Amino acid sequence: MKIPKGLIADFRKEQVFLLTTHISPDGDAIGSCLALAEALKLLGKTVVVYDKDPVPEYYRFMPGCRTFRSAPGDILSKDPFVVLLDCNSPERAALEGHSFRKIIVIDHHETESDFGDIRWVERNAAATGLMIFHLIKALGVPITKTIATNLYTAIAVDTGTFRYSNTGTDVLLAAASLVEAGAKPGTISEYLYERWKKSRFDLLTLSLETLEIKDGVSLVHVTKEMHKKTGTTESDTENFANVPRIIDTVKISVLIREVDDGRWKVSMRSKGRVNVATIASAFGGGGHRNAAGFRMKADLATVKKVILKSARAIISQS
Amino acid sequence: MKIPKGLIADFRKEQVFLLTTHISPDGDAIGSCLALAEALKLLGKTVVVYDKDPVPEYYRFMPGCRTFRSAPGDILSKDPFVVLLDCNSPERAALEGHSFRKIIVIDHHETESDFGDIRWVERNAAATGLMIFHLIKALGVPITKTIATNLYTAIAVDTGTFRYSNTGTDVLLAAASLVEAGAKPGTISEYLYERWKKSRFDLLTLSLETLEIKDGVSLVHVTKEMHKKTGTTESDTENFANVPRIIDTVKISVLIREVDDGRWKVSMRSKGRVNVATIASAFGGGGHRNAAGFRMKADLATVKKVILKSARAIISQS
Repeated sequence: MKIPKGLIADFRKEQVFLLTTHISPDGDAIGSCLALAEALKLLGKTVVVYDKDPVPEYYRFMPGCRTFRSAPGDILSKDPFVVLLDCNSPERAALEGHSFRKIIVIDHHETESDFGDIRWVERNAAATGLMIFHLIKALGVPITKTIATNLYTAIAVDTGTFRYSNTGTDVLLAAASLVEAGAKPGTISEYLYERWKKSRFDLLTLSLETLEIKDGVSLVHVTKEMHKKTGTTESDTENFANVPRIIDTVKISVLIREVDDGRWKVSMRSKGRVNVATIASAFGGGGHRNAAGFRMKADLATVKKVILKSARAIISQS
Repeated sequence: MKIPKGLIADFRKEQVFLLTTHISPDGDAIGSCLALAEALKLLGKTVVVYDKDPVPEYYRFMPGCRTFRSAPGDILSKDPFVVLLDCNSPERAALEGHSFRKIIVIDHHETESDFGDIRWVERNAAATGLMIFHLIKALGVPITKTIATNLYTAIAVDTGTFRYSNTGTDVLLAAASLVEAGAKPGTISEYLYERWKKSRFDLLTLSLETLEIKDGVSLVHVTKEMHKKTGTTESDTENFANVPRIIDTVKISVLIREVDDGRWKVSMRSKGRVNVATIASAFGGGGHRNAAGFRMKADLATVKKVILKSARAIISQS
């Protein structure tokens, strides 16, 4: 990992910073911003962290999360030095319509864009948080407990707490340093994974009772009736699509949610090289290779039949 | 972590080894045995690994797992040096009825027993695999890919892939070394978490339908009838006790499995400082603070009542 020339000098020289990240921020986005903000404040700088969207409830344990602002605000009049973290376009960071003196991009996503005056993009970095860890060390700022907790969370989220194949020696060594500096893996994991409401758990159980597996495709569904029975809403189904992935024969895991009478939202998760974005596109949806979705107006049996047909075709091509 | 005097000398001097671990072996038990066996073989020793029970199917990716024997066999006539790993009594290792010249115990479980000629028990070690990592290094044996994969799996299993509070700097540094030596976190995690048989998944769904939560204690049970219905065996319930832990109000998660008519095996998992080993000990079982178990002969309703009473007392003291 090589920090571009000039980046450290800029961070030392500048006094006023606007740090921002992508909309719908995840743990890596939030942790990277908060850790860098804390480090810059320790260097005596003025720092604002901005995201148009609020920090999701399950990330509100992250120290400093309440400092996020939903608009850049007054800082704009102070001609701030802008840093985009974990994203690389003004649209993703909801910065359209503003112009800035100098913009730094720090990201680990694959990208075609050339936005930013200095671009530090490490496609092989497991998390932007890992890049920020090295940046903060290069700035000579000590890793405080606040920094450690934010960066550990960032890295944990983007590596599936060290379960994904991006978990390299560098990731584990950084994690060890962060624990040494005060990050608590047990507490962080508890916040990330063990704060389900009983009602949400009941909804999961109900949905698993609908599990069918055909030709490498698992199908589960959630109806409005199930939401009513358990007192839950659509946001409670977050991640349900991943659950049947744990079955060995499943190549594509599909969650079908009733959104209105006769309208269904389909979320697909796949393993390895099976590309579900192709299926989503065919039905006017979108996503990535291993996670994509679309909407469909039909009865449940038809929705399932249509998905199975497309999924079989994709699996046979993979 | 301090390896007792004499242990290294014994490992160097002796030529014939019988390595064994507890019945119903888990990833830490299997990985510790296989890694130490490989290291001793590299030193030119004769080694047999023994467990009365077979290696569960989902651990059969662990290199060398086919060398496990279900009986000590011929090696007994060669007066072997016996090493008990990840357990500390002859009963747990199904060694009753045999007598041996010298027995080493290497374990990280809290224990009152004084079995063994040399006892190396590190109650604060996250995994026996972590102890074996240091032992192999002290023996001067290089960490091969086989050793690395076995020890990484051992440590991953006993720390919930770095999610439990026992994930310290030492654990992450050892994991980093093991990845450096060839362990593949993504592949190991896929074997551990995404190779469920459909039958096992069905058993989980059935058991979750029995979920009750009272005063911070979740109870789920698995009966012989459920095994019959799904075509599963007891080893398919591995980790089921952890599932209801994800609910925010749950402080102790309990899995109750029917082993014989009227006999139940109780597995408990707790969060934070809630010590379930105390409950297990009171009923003649054992374990660690956050993971412990025992057996009980009674009807299911009585088993639940007894657990709830003890669990409430422990939670109120925590």
